[in-house]
Amino acid sequence: MKSFITYDSQSDFSIHNIPFGVAILQDDSVVCVTRVGDTVIDLAYLYEKGYFDQFELEENLFEAFGLNEFISLGKEITVPFREYLQQLFLEDSELSKDEETQTEAFHFIDTVFMQLPVHIPNYTDFYSSIEHATNVGKMFRDPENALLPNWRHIPVGYHGRASSIVVSGTPIHRPSGQSKPKDSDVPVFGPSQRLDFELEVAFITNAYTELGETISTADAEDNIFGLVLFNDWSARDIQQWEYVPLGPFLAKNFGSSISPWIVTLEALAPFRTAGPKQEPEVFPYLQFEGNKNIDLKLQTTLKPESGVENVICNSNFKYMYWNMSQQLAHHTINGCNIEVGDMYASGTISGHTEDSFGSMLELTWGGTKPLTLSDGTERKFINDNDTVIMRGWCENGEIRVGFGEVEGKILPAKA
Amino acid sequence: MKSFITYDSQSDFSIHNIPFGVAILQDDSVVCVTRVGDTVIDLAYLYEKGYFDQFELEENLFEAFGLNEFISLGKEITVPFREYLQQLFLEDSELSKDEETQTEAFHFIDTVFMQLPVHIPNYTDFYSSIEHATNVGKMFRDPENALLPNWRHIPVGYHGRASSIVVSGTPIHRPSGQSKPKDSDVPVFGPSQRLDFELEVAFITNAYTELGETISTADAEDNIFGLVLFNDWSARDIQQWEYVPLGPFLAKNFGSSISPWIVTLEALAPFRTAGPKQEPEVFPYLQFEGNKNIDLKLQTTLKPESGVENVICNSNFKYMYWNMSQQLAHHTINGCNIEVGDMYASGTISGHTEDSFGSMLELTWGGTKPLTLSDGTERKFINDNDTVIMRGWCENGEIRVGFGEVEGKILPAKA
Repeated sequence: MKSFITYDSQSDFSIHNIPFGVAILQDDSVVCVTRVGDTVIDLAYLYEKGYFDQFELEENLFEAFGLNEFISLGKEITVPFREYLQQLFLEDSELSKDEETQTEAFHFIDTVFMQLPVHIPNYTDFYSSIEHATNVGKMFRDPENALLPNWRHIPVGYHGRASSIVVSGTPIHRPSGQSKPKDSDVPVFGPSQRLDFELEVAFITNAYTELGETISTADAEDNIFGLVLFNDWSARDIQQWEYVPLGPFLAKNFGSSISPWIVTLEALAPFRTAGPKQEPEVFPYLQFEGNKNIDLKLQTTLKPESGVENVICNSNFKYMYWNMSQQLAHHTINGCNIEVGDMYASGTISGHTEDSFGSMLELTWGGTKPLTLSDGTERKFINDNDTVIMRGWCENGEIRVGFGEVEGKILPAKA
Repeated sequence: MKSFITYDSQSDFSIHNIPFGVAILQDDSVVCVTRVGDTVIDLAYLYEKGYFDQFELEENLFEAFGLNEFISLGKEITVPFREYLQQLFLEDSELSKDEETQTEAFHFIDTVFMQLPVHIPNYTDFYSSIEHATNVGKMFRDPENALLPNWRHIPVGYHGRASSIVVSGTPIHRPSGQSKPKDSDVPVFGPSQRLDFELEVAFITNAYTELGETISTADAEDNIFGLVLFNDWSARDIQQWEYVPLGPFLAKNFGSSISPWIVTLEALAPFRTAGPKQEPEVFPYLQFEGNKNIDLKLQTTLKPESGVENVICNSNFKYMYWNMSQQLAHHTINGCNIEVGDMYASGTISGHTEDSFGSMLELTWGGTKPLTLSDGTERKFINDNDTVIMRGWCENGEIRVGFGEVEGKILPAKA
């Protein structure tokens, strides 16, 4: 497949990708867009020019602050729609000869502001990397019995705060809160001293279900539109003091950052792979067939204010013990209903090796082994004015499909 | 104050109340409403007839599926608006003489279907009754050290699932899920055997804040529009197996039920009272002035399918250790943003005496002391086809302001 839109061979946004996002254009209009290379394509404009007439959409769903209406059409529409877009961007297509439309609908990426791609009604965070759960268990509980008894039976998850999910590039203030230092009998109050990132991937659902309805592992992926990169910022000291017995709360809900482009499951299909073997056997409602993991390379870098990016982690989404179909089947087995635009994050994705750990907590082993950056400074956790950048891409020697990045800078605590 | 709309002296919806809700009328229109006695008043119709012209609203906000737009106007508008409504319903008012409008705008309560009063973007559940937290700690942890170390320092809370909050009258299917019986080495799967209610009260916010912004205890109530009764259905066996380390998840998100009428903070003002003394002293951001608790009587009844209501609990919202202002100040101290329509529930409200405990878990002490109902049957937890009804009202010898009820029937597990 060769597109008439030129791009670098290392671009995440090859003709094989065709992701979806929402952008503010230079004329301040907010529209749904796709992207090839560094070219952002205004879908609302293409709609107006009649390029989508064959889909008989009732209105211009792309003149919207979120992709929710579009993705709610379901895969019956959105899969052929994406394939049609792909054809439209090939050499010798109708669009390739329509210079007037190209002039109006095509925008260089640096001239637009990417927004949250969907309105997010509900957000759940899982805890599905066995390496991450084991590392945390070793540090905070029993090194000999690091995994809790339920972990291999349940894709453990908890509800997060949807309101504080922001798009890549949004700075986050260091949270203040209570924590209890080890050498103190009483808690203290102040800016978090152990601010961390968590390298995650999140999926977005495209359907509404009724309360009481379940989704099987076989049907789960029909309800998943696509994925984004997810940085689940975490304040470890606040978390440690607050999380027993009801889970993380203020340690997490001060902000989570996502990448702006939703990469569809269909674009990721060539990169499917088997997940880790699950022992003991899981309950029938969690059993599944086929390759449910994705060979999606993940990287995290840390950039000090006046420095360069330091690669601090190389991980892979394929390490996930529990896959997305199992997560969604578990989430709904009690009849919990899902909504269009819901976000379901994986939990921190760590691998076996020390350089694949997906959080500072693990990389510095609770702050006991600081990282040394290229500028000679050390990090136990994230400093003020540090920027954390996560990238994700799939590559198989023939094609490349990537997510771009999710970037976030930590500003000092407010007062 | 005497209304031209007649009502029983024991009505929760006296002229002193003037609550807000959303109803489907007999012509299938969905409108925002208020209520006096058993008369539901269509605010959208009153708007059309010019009764609200003085407020210079930009459009008919009452033709809506939720009160979100109305409450987002803030107390500067909504407080005088409610007072104006109250005047409108008094004897000799303009409306009292406008029989045509009364005919069109007034509906008998049994002829309308009450809906969720707001769209709920985010839902948080606190754990703010010291009696409840102590009871749970005694049962599941150490009877001598029932309260966890953080409890008197932090209004402990966690995020719940907004999508599965339903209005009173909506039946709920018993959830299925994993649990681990005490005598088993491995978990089992099936319908919950320990289905419970939790008697709670929830407040609803009327504002959007920016990420990074905090709300002080002094300002908190400006951001609280009003309250509803809240039944936080809970599956204790599922909860016990899943909740360590990230908190309750499938044990809660199969459904929560709320009463349809939002009673405003202003209607509850005459019933303010002091809360329990807080020891040790709390951090400055949690300190407050004035009477922040409310003398709101709460009752729970259990009705078997072919039986009568059995009163199983009499509690009071005034028992709360942490008040709403502290909850909201805590929730935002890290910069977490709030949204219009967010729901913040209190956690189970228990008193000191055994008949004031707000859950079956406490009332039957983990199932060890079953309740005997009037039909001679016993209950450790909630059976299929049982209906749980919660009521709440304030009374001071002169006036009565109440919430009506939140009712929910448990249907058998699906398949």
